[in-house]
Amino acid sequence: MLRTNTCGELRITDTGKEVVLCGWLQRFRDIGTIGFIDLRDRYGITQLSFDQNRNKEIFEAAKKLGREYVLQIKGIVAERTSKNEKLLTGDIEVIVNEINVLNQSKTPPFTIENETDGGDELRMKYRYIDLRREIVRKNLELRHTISKFARQYLDSQNFIEIETPVLIKSTPEGARDFIVPSRLNQGEWYALPQSPQTFKQLLMVSGFDRYYQIVKCFRDEDLRADRQPEFTQIDCEMSFVEQEDILNTFEGMIKNIFKNVKNLSFEKFIRITYEDAMKNYGSDKPDMRFEMKFVYLDNVARGFGFNIFDDAETIIAINVKGASNYTRKQLDELTEYVKRPQIGAKGLIYCRVNEDGTLKSSVDKFYNEEALKLWVKECNSEKNDLILVLSGDLNITRKQMNELRLEVAKMLGLRNPEKFVPLWVTDFPLLEFDEDSNRWHAMHHPFTSPKIEDIELLKTNPGKIRANAYDLVINGVEIGGGSIRIHDRFLQQQMFSLLGFTEEQAQYQFGFLMNAFEYGAPPHGGIAFGFDRLCSLFGGSETIRDFIAFPKNNNGRDVMIDAPSEISTEQKKELGIK
Amino acid sequence: MLRTNTCGELRITDTGKEVVLCGWLQRFRDIGTIGFIDLRDRYGITQLSFDQNRNKEIFEAAKKLGREYVLQIKGIVAERTSKNEKLLTGDIEVIVNEINVLNQSKTPPFTIENETDGGDELRMKYRYIDLRREIVRKNLELRHTISKFARQYLDSQNFIEIETPVLIKSTPEGARDFIVPSRLNQGEWYALPQSPQTFKQLLMVSGFDRYYQIVKCFRDEDLRADRQPEFTQIDCEMSFVEQEDILNTFEGMIKNIFKNVKNLSFEKFIRITYEDAMKNYGSDKPDMRFEMKFVYLDNVARGFGFNIFDDAETIIAINVKGASNYTRKQLDELTEYVKRPQIGAKGLIYCRVNEDGTLKSSVDKFYNEEALKLWVKECNSEKNDLILVLSGDLNITRKQMNELRLEVAKMLGLRNPEKFVPLWVTDFPLLEFDEDSNRWHAMHHPFTSPKIEDIELLKTNPGKIRANAYDLVINGVEIGGGSIRIHDRFLQQQMFSLLGFTEEQAQYQFGFLMNAFEYGAPPHGGIAFGFDRLCSLFGGSETIRDFIAFPKNNNGRDVMIDAPSEISTEQKKELGIK
Repeated sequence: MLRTNTCGELRITDTGKEVVLCGWLQRFRDIGTIGFIDLRDRYGITQLSFDQNRNKEIFEAAKKLGREYVLQIKGIVAERTSKNEKLLTGDIEVIVNEINVLNQSKTPPFTIENETDGGDELRMKYRYIDLRREIVRKNLELRHTISKFARQYLDSQNFIEIETPVLIKSTPEGARDFIVPSRLNQGEWYALPQSPQTFKQLLMVSGFDRYYQIVKCFRDEDLRADRQPEFTQIDCEMSFVEQEDILNTFEGMIKNIFKNVKNLSFEKFIRITYEDAMKNYGSDKPDMRFEMKFVYLDNVARGFGFNIFDDAETIIAINVKGASNYTRKQLDELTEYVKRPQIGAKGLIYCRVNEDGTLKSSVDKFYNEEALKLWVKECNSEKNDLILVLSGDLNITRKQMNELRLEVAKMLGLRNPEKFVPLWVTDFPLLEFDEDSNRWHAMHHPFTSPKIEDIELLKTNPGKIRANAYDLVINGVEIGGGSIRIHDRFLQQQMFSLLGFTEEQAQYQFGFLMNAFEYGAPPHGGIAFGFDRLCSLFGGSETIRDFIAFPKNNNGRDVMIDAPSEISTEQKKELGIK
Repeated sequence: MLRTNTCGELRITDTGKEVVLCGWLQRFRDIGTIGFIDLRDRYGITQLSFDQNRNKEIFEAAKKLGREYVLQIKGIVAERTSKNEKLLTGDIEVIVNEINVLNQSKTPPFTIENETDGGDELRMKYRYIDLRREIVRKNLELRHTISKFARQYLDSQNFIEIETPVLIKSTPEGARDFIVPSRLNQGEWYALPQSPQTFKQLLMVSGFDRYYQIVKCFRDEDLRADRQPEFTQIDCEMSFVEQEDILNTFEGMIKNIFKNVKNLSFEKFIRITYEDAMKNYGSDKPDMRFEMKFVYLDNVARGFGFNIFDDAETIIAINVKGASNYTRKQLDELTEYVKRPQIGAKGLIYCRVNEDGTLKSSVDKFYNEEALKLWVKECNSEKNDLILVLSGDLNITRKQMNELRLEVAKMLGLRNPEKFVPLWVTDFPLLEFDEDSNRWHAMHHPFTSPKIEDIELLKTNPGKIRANAYDLVINGVEIGGGSIRIHDRFLQQQMFSLLGFTEEQAQYQFGFLMNAFEYGAPPHGGIAFGFDRLCSLFGGSETIRDFIAFPKNNNGRDVMIDAPSEISTEQKKELGIK
C-alpha cells in the first residue's frame, strides 16, 4: 500500500506515530511562517502542517502545490493547538517531512465543496470531479448501504438472487423497448428488459419459491427529471402466497432498511384501497405525512345560486389547519397555482374561519354565514382554519385538489423530508380504458391476477374488476408495486384477448409463459421496488439522478463520455444495418 | 401463506402435528391398499401417505394425480415404518386428509431427475422445467452463495458497490460491441459494456478508493461452449496500491469463498511469471494440480542423425510418472491426439523407462541406450516412467506440449475436480504483435501500465515490455485478470499511439478518460473475475451454461423465449432504421 492510514482515521491516540497518507489537496492555507494543507480522501480530511522555521524546503514545496493534486506525504502525528470539533480527525495534524506528488491536477472547473459553484451541465460533463464532493459521495455510499441491508433481509428470508438475461425478446406491451441487432441472426433483434417480469414468473414455475434480484431495467421513454433510460429495481417474487404474505414480507424489508439506515421503527404500515385513495386524496400515491382529507360539499353547497357549484359534477374541499390568516396575496398565489395549465382549475374558492368564529368566504355573495356554517361542519373546521374548495368533473377535480393539497402542505412545511409515512395502496383496478387506442390496457401489467370475486365481470364490466395489485407509497412517492399473478393458462389467454391481442400475437410474444403455465405453475406473486427512488427518498432528495453514479440527461445522453455516438460503417455492415 | 411448512423441514419431533404443504408431485407409488406421493419443493421432498382402508375417497383421488401437478395437502405428521436415511425428512411421512390441486400439469417432456432422459436442446427449450432438477437448482443456489460471500468479503474490506451504466459508448478496441440505436438521438448508438473498465477507473479518479460490482458484461463474439454473449464479472478496483496489494486483497477474497463454500483452506497461492509459465507449461494458465514440467532436450538430443530433432527450433519432453506400461494402442491414441488439426503436431516420440531400468524408445534407430540415458537424466525419470517428446518451432511446440500434458493428466486421473490449486501468473507482456493487422495489440487492454523499469523499451522494443498485469488461474482455468493501470495522461496517449490510434481517434473514443487523468488521477489498479466460470469451477463443471439460469445457445439464441426475433416495422420506423 502507498499509505499506512487513510485521511479519516488518525486520532489523538496516534500522536507521535510516523504515518504515510495519500489523498487530494483540498485546501492550502498559509499564516505567515506556518502552512496547512487539508488532505482529503474518501474516508475524511486530515490537516497537514508545515513550519517554515522547522523545514523551509518542504514549506516552500507545499506552497507550490495546486488544488486537487494527488499527494503522498510522510510525517508525524501531533496534537493540534486549535482543535476542530467538526472533523473526526480534528484533534490532530500531521507534521510533514516528505511530499511526493503522485499526480498533478489542472484547476478543477468548479469547487469541490458541498455548495459548489459548478452548474448542472458542467458538473455532469466532469462527473468524475463532481463525485468527489462529499454530498455526492455520501449518496452513493447510502445506495450501497441500502442494497446491503435489502440483500441481508432477503437472504435471511430464504430468497435467492438469480440473474435473468439482459438480451431478451421484444414484447412491446407497455413502454418502448431498447433493441439490439443480432449479428449471428441477422435481421433479428434482442430487446433489453423493461423488467425481469416473465423470467421471474418462470423461476416460480421452476420451483425457486423465493427469488430476488437487484437489477438494471431499461425503458425507451421520453425522459423527465426523475426518469432514466436505465434504472435499477429490487425485483422479487414468491410462490404459494397470497397478497397478505407479500405485503408482510416486504413491509419487513422496508422496516429493516429504515431501522438499519435511519434507526427508525414503524408500526404496521397504513393501508388504503385505491378507491379510497382516489376519493380521499385524489391520488393513488397520497402523501400521508399530513391528513387534509378531501371533504365533499355536494350535499351542502348546491342550490345557492352559485352556478359554478350547481353545475359541477362534484365540489371538493380541504380544511387547512391554522391557515385563516393567509394573506390575500398568498391566496392569489394559490389561485394562480391551480389555474396553471398543468393543473387547469378555473378558480379557487375559500372560506376563512376567523379567530373570533366569524366566517369570510370568497363567495359571500351567494353564501351567508349560515350556509357557510354547513361547510364548516362538513369539514370539521375550527377557529383559524381555512377551507379551500374546487369543483368540476369528478376525476379532474380530484386530481386538481390533490395538487392543491400537496402545494398547501409544502407551504405549511408539512412535507418534512425527515418524516416518513409508508402506505400500502391496494385493490387497484385491473384495467383502464384508453380512449386513444379504444381498448383496455392493463393498469399494472397483463400478468396481474384479478380478484377471484370479480372474475365474473370479465365479460360484463371489465372496468370494475379489481386486481390483486398493490403499491408501496412513502411520502407521496411510489416506491414499489406488485401483484399476485395469473398462473392459469386459460385466464392468461383471456386477459390477452381482453387487451386486444389476437391468439396468434399472444402466442408469438408470450407463448413461452403460457406454455409454462401448463406444466405445473404454482400460485405466485411479487413486487418490484424502484431502487433509485428508494435511495433518493432515504437521501431526502427528489431527483434520482443524484443517486446514480453516471446518470444520463433528459435527452438520454451521457455528456461525460458523449454517448450515444456515431458508429463505424464497418460495425453497421457486420450487423447488416444501413 | 398457502402452507405451514416446506417439504424440507418436517422431522420426527413434528410427529402428530397438523400441517399444510405445497409442492410438486414427484412420484406416486401404490402398493395395494397404500399409496405414497413424493411431494417436492425447493427445500426437499416429503412423503405423503394414503391408506385406502382409512380414507378410500382421498386414496382414489390421489391415484388420479399426474406427475408435476401442483398440490396443497393437509395432513398429520407421522413416524414412518420404513425410514429413508437419504432424506432429511426420511423419518416421517404426512398422512393426508385433504388434497387441493393448485394446478395441473401436462406430462413433462423429460423426467425431473438428476439423470434425466431429456437431451440438451429439449431441456433448453423447457428450461423452466429443467431448472426443477435438483442438480440444476443446486448450481444456481451455489451461485447465490458465492456472490454472497464475495460481497461479504469485499464489504468487510471497505469496498463499495457502485453501479456503472449499461448504455455507454462504442469503443471497438478488442471484441465486438453489442449496440443499441438511440431514438432520442437518431443516427447515434449506445454500446453495451464489454466491462466497466473506464468507469471504474473514473471512480478511482473520483476518489472512491475501493470499488466493486457484480455486473453483466457483453461481447458480440462467435460463441463456444464456455462463452456467452452476456456474462457476469466481479469487477474490482483500488487506489493507492501496488500489484502486491491487489494480489493479497483478492487472494483473500478467493480464500474466503473457498473456506465458506467448500471448507477448504489454502497457504499463500503459488506465483509464476508469464515467461516461466510459457517455458515450463507452454500455457499462461497452467493446471498446477500436477507437475509434469517441460524438459528441454535441446542440448542432449541433437546430433544423432534424427533430422526431425536436429532441424527443430526446440525439443520438449515431459516425464509421465508410472506410465511406462502404456500400451501401444494408448500411445497411438496419444499420437493421434497431438496430430489432430486443432493441435497440429507431426508426430510423438516416446521413451519408456522399464521396470528393470532398460529403455525403449520409438526412435531406437537413432538413439542407443546411452543416448537415451541423457534424456532420462534431464527428465529426472525413474523406473516405470514414460518420456513423451515433441519438437518444432518454440511457441508452437510449447502449445502442443501443453495440450499433451493436459490430455495425459486427464488419462492419469490427475485433473480431480475436487482438488483446487490456485495460481497467480504475473508479468504478462504489455503488447503482442498481430500479423493480420500488422500492429501491436494490448495483451490485457490499453489501460494497463507497463513496468516502470521497462518503460524505456517503449520506443525501442515494445514486445519486450512487461506489464503490471496478472491473472488468477485455478486448475488451468483463468478465473480473473487485472492490472495496475496507467494514471498519467501522457503515458496513456503514448500507449494509444503505439496501438495505432491517431491522436484524434484516441481523443474521440477515450478523451473523457485522458481528460480525467489531468484532474488528479491517483495510482490505481484492479481485477475482474469471471463469475460464471468461478461458479462452474466451484460446481465441478466445465460449462458455465450450467450455472446460468437462462443461457443462450452457441448461436446466441434463447430457444425458450425464441430471441432474438423480428421486430415490428413501427419499432424500426421510430428508431429511424431500415
